[in-house]
Amino acid sequence: MNETQNAVPATKRVRVKRLPDRARYDRETIEAILDEAFICHVGFNTEHGPVVIPTGYGRDGNNLIIHGSAASQMLRDLSKGVDVCVTVTILDGLVLARSAFHHSMNYRSVVIFGKAELITEKEEKNRALEILSEHIIRDRWKDVRPPSDKELKATTVLRLPIDEASAKVRVGPPKDDEEDHSINVWAGVVPFETTLGAPIADERNIGALPGYLRQE
Amino acid sequence: MNETQNAVPATKRVRVKRLPDRARYDRETIEAILDEAFICHVGFNTEHGPVVIPTGYGRDGNNLIIHGSAASQMLRDLSKGVDVCVTVTILDGLVLARSAFHHSMNYRSVVIFGKAELITEKEEKNRALEILSEHIIRDRWKDVRPPSDKELKATTVLRLPIDEASAKVRVGPPKDDEEDHSINVWAGVVPFETTLGAPIADERNIGALPGYLRQE
Repeated sequence: MNETQNAVPATKRVRVKRLPDRARYDRETIEAILDEAFICHVGFNTEHGPVVIPTGYGRDGNNLIIHGSAASQMLRDLSKGVDVCVTVTILDGLVLARSAFHHSMNYRSVVIFGKAELITEKEEKNRALEILSEHIIRDRWKDVRPPSDKELKATTVLRLPIDEASAKVRVGPPKDDEEDHSINVWAGVVPFETTLGAPIADERNIGALPGYLRQE
Repeated sequence: MNETQNAVPATKRVRVKRLPDRARYDRETIEAILDEAFICHVGFNTEHGPVVIPTGYGRDGNNLIIHGSAASQMLRDLSKGVDVCVTVTILDGLVLARSAFHHSMNYRSVVIFGKAELITEKEEKNRALEILSEHIIRDRWKDVRPPSDKELKATTVLRLPIDEASAKVRVGPPKDDEEDHSINVWAGVVPFETTLGAPIADERNIGALPGYLRQE
């Protein structure tokens, strides 16, 4: 079960039921996944049923930071403190087995349950937006024009405590039935690789390419 | 609004409210996004609140195909015909503006609302699994051992009609305020590129690398 002293509290809804050997409850694993991905999928219930919306995020210690337009229905719903489930998924590879049945994917995912809280204080809001920006592209914040008071007012920023959370991780080769190993078909893993491509300057760009965008 | 004769029916919950100029309701756009991505995020409500789970999928004409273990709580819940929201997101790039406020991402996403239906008939179930497999890795199905009756029984396969659906698409450069264009900072788009890496053969692999895994 990989539970450590530094585990998040285990509530009923956060326990991984299917394939529990893939479950991780330690903060290190959960935070590493959150720190690597760019977007989360936010699920909540509305009068019209469940809704799942993709959005960027950041992590401030034990809180996930989400932001959006103050006019966004999602942000308005979440500001009210409704139950929310936020899921972050990284696809690592296709797992190709000898049987159709044992095909799988290697992935790392985190599911967080809780209620989001509004960040209203100006300095705290600014700091949360900086964390979000730095999460997505490090060292950018100091280069750009900071939010004006009007822009800050037009932006809703929420924190979601990472208290009720679990990770699920599949790694490694296919797990075929013993008798299928004699089937003459290629079996193994095909990794996914996500990289940043060559930057495309805006047609009115006047700035030099910053260090954080230079290809190694 | 990009509505065409071939648009999906527009219900209240499916209308894109925020930034409606990014909305697309035509089947061509919706299907192209669904056909390109590998995983979806499935949201539904439970007695413990909303849950969002990542999973693979396929598309059979006007139906999304989802599958999983018959023992999975998600599949059991969805089989009952509860309301579900399935979201597919492709990240295309980071949009770097002159102001923090106008930073964004280029993306293509689809949101589908509806109720899933169980596929029970054996031939239909097999065909749905083949479609799912071919969606993820084309030409693989014919090479592998097909599902046994026991494996088919252990697998739940669902179809979700793509009737209530919308896409949201952001493309192109940053949209800065006119007065910010004189700020001396690089502005533009950094594309994301997801590729398949070099295949890693299983240690007991005896098959030759198939054509669909050879790097161009």
